[in-house]
Amino acid sequence: MTGLADLEDIGVDARRGGFSRHGYDLAELELRAWFTAEAQARGLAVECDRNGNLWAWWGAPGDGAVVTGSHLDSVPGGGAFDGPLGVVSALAAVDVLRGRGFTPGKPFAVVVFAEEEGGRFGVACLGSRLLAGAIEPAAALRLSDPDGVTLAEAMRSAGLDPARVGRDPEALKRIGTFVELHVEQGRGLVDLGVPVGVASSILAHGRWRVTVSGEGNHAGATLMVDRRDPMVAAAQVVLAVRRSALAVEGARATVGRLVPNPGGTNVIPSSVDLWLDARADDDARTRAVVAEIAAAAESAAAEEGCVVTMTEESYGDTVVFDPVLRDSLAGVLGGVPALPTGAGHDAGILAAHVPTAMLFVRNPTGISHAPAEFAEDADCAAGVTALADVLESLAR
Amino acid sequence: MTGLADLEDIGVDARRGGFSRHGYDLAELELRAWFTAEAQARGLAVECDRNGNLWAWWGAPGDGAVVTGSHLDSVPGGGAFDGPLGVVSALAAVDVLRGRGFTPGKPFAVVVFAEEEGGRFGVACLGSRLLAGAIEPAAALRLSDPDGVTLAEAMRSAGLDPARVGRDPEALKRIGTFVELHVEQGRGLVDLGVPVGVASSILAHGRWRVTVSGEGNHAGATLMVDRRDPMVAAAQVVLAVRRSALAVEGARATVGRLVPNPGGTNVIPSSVDLWLDARADDDARTRAVVAEIAAAAESAAAEEGCVVTMTEESYGDTVVFDPVLRDSLAGVLGGVPALPTGAGHDAGILAAHVPTAMLFVRNPTGISHAPAEFAEDADCAAGVTALADVLESLAR
Repeated sequence: MTGLADLEDIGVDARRGGFSRHGYDLAELELRAWFTAEAQARGLAVECDRNGNLWAWWGAPGDGAVVTGSHLDSVPGGGAFDGPLGVVSALAAVDVLRGRGFTPGKPFAVVVFAEEEGGRFGVACLGSRLLAGAIEPAAALRLSDPDGVTLAEAMRSAGLDPARVGRDPEALKRIGTFVELHVEQGRGLVDLGVPVGVASSILAHGRWRVTVSGEGNHAGATLMVDRRDPMVAAAQVVLAVRRSALAVEGARATVGRLVPNPGGTNVIPSSVDLWLDARADDDARTRAVVAEIAAAAESAAAEEGCVVTMTEESYGDTVVFDPVLRDSLAGVLGGVPALPTGAGHDAGILAAHVPTAMLFVRNPTGISHAPAEFAEDADCAAGVTALADVLESLAR
Repeated sequence: MTGLADLEDIGVDARRGGFSRHGYDLAELELRAWFTAEAQARGLAVECDRNGNLWAWWGAPGDGAVVTGSHLDSVPGGGAFDGPLGVVSALAAVDVLRGRGFTPGKPFAVVVFAEEEGGRFGVACLGSRLLAGAIEPAAALRLSDPDGVTLAEAMRSAGLDPARVGRDPEALKRIGTFVELHVEQGRGLVDLGVPVGVASSILAHGRWRVTVSGEGNHAGATLMVDRRDPMVAAAQVVLAVRRSALAVEGARATVGRLVPNPGGTNVIPSSVDLWLDARADDDARTRAVVAEIAAAAESAAAEEGCVVTMTEESYGDTVVFDPVLRDSLAGVLGGVPALPTGAGHDAGILAAHVPTAMLFVRNPTGISHAPAEFAEDADCAAGVTALADVLESLAR
């Protein structure tokens, strides 16, 4: 897709494959500069809010705006579409609407939310969460990346004032309706044979940090029976995660990040940190999966003479998108299907405050958060047209 | 201990605890500079050989020298004693011998071997292996650290010429006898109630890199049954490592380092790299443990729709130290006990070429490769006296 091609050299991760673009790192700052230039080239006025989110206004800013957009950051080694497709499509939709001779009858903005993936500071949807007051500013500012840089430090380096971070009622009031276009992260549209759909709901979703502490020692000199090896207990936790999720209909639980400390080949680790990502249809099921994992972790750690702690880093209950808006937009698009998703989005955070909808663009493999993530040009174009149609209907 | 106290600010690892000092990194270069200054202050002439090992000569260099020393690098987050105790004790023994009015009747050197732990480039005893021709120079120079810096690049940055790396018969010929003093990495001397002992043997020891490849995907949007998750297979490998080592008398096998790629909380990894450290009394037992782990890894990977590869990164058969030298030194020390060790050492590499011995200093907890590694001042002092006695008997 045209706009995405502009970004293909930014944040390339040669080691992991794909892209690594995280909140306020060099790649994400370059993407922000790209967005600002593109918006300004269209005559949109760009501003950065207190929480690091970028707003490009078509006409005068004001309350009750029609807002569209997504994010530009990625997971580590992520694909090209998750995030940027929604931003590029928003700008392209502005072009389409102008081509149609349309001028919004309401305030209208394109937004880029900061650190949606949580790939640097661990909490997903950080920009929208801060804006909506869904995370304590002090707690957020203390979050640190793997190099120990805090969010406060990273924001300061990017020219933002950490003291101004937090719930932003003015920004929230300006959003009348939010529509986020996103590549689908599954094969729902492939199975239905259509290029575009609307979102019905997002699974309940949380992240937990699990730390197993044992006794660091020499890998050669320590007898097997004398060990308190947290890696062995952590491996049991990984298997419990799989087992517990399989036992609950619709649940998904994953360990994608695991860090032994100190991490030497010839060293029994003194501790292992791992992160649990757990999701299910509702709060009760999600909590049940996590409770079972916690019990298994306790027992695995005890068996190995280790100690385990488990800390919730973020949690969000199931999001059901505004059904009236959803059905109305599906109607504008000629009756496209509505699909649930297991992925979290800024739209899910905002849905608690304003009418919010999402459009999905078909993903031929369903793969996401990986370099193989993809959408055909024709489907991306269909997404832009659909987004323009929807925005036109809302901003009349 | 006096000399060790000089080093306590170098390479402190605030994140892991303990010290991280790896071949040719800033900390290790600082330690080399410290050693050079200390040796020169004693009137010893310091030279760096083709493979990055430092030699400090008491008197004129020559063939058939009495050589003592150890290494200054650590495992990631290692203790203060493993390596530096042997170097500091060697310099202190020179002081003791001079205090006794002793002058060596043979060439005499203190040596510091490079990258003994393999904490940066993955292969243990790299400096002594290269010197002894126990690793191909081209293969060694291609080794890379976690940031992708090769050994060749690191050596060049440190002012060394990678083209000169490799078997060094001149250096080898200069070593008549090598004696390495080391903190014990186990509780053998504690149980015997003595401060110093000599080494009898080192276990057979190898390192393997295990890569499990699956399918990277979204942690929320991918159904559990659709996954090919290499982390789940890797967890099975970790448990197989424990199980296989427990099944063979005296064997030890460890996974201390594990890296998921890309390593995001909300991402099913596309692959997981883990490193196996396996040791046993002899070659047959070590190979048996590794073969069983390999079979379990194949089966775990297949069950998860993943593919596993296993690459030997280093291997050394059992080392039995020269029994005549061992008994002679034990006699000089009044009949101290001889102990086997599970830990690898440069002395183990050199033992295939020259008469080699080791002295161990009591470690009250037995813990090593961790910040808790320790030896009492009195035991360190007993180690220095013992080393001086032994060197005097050899260098007469």
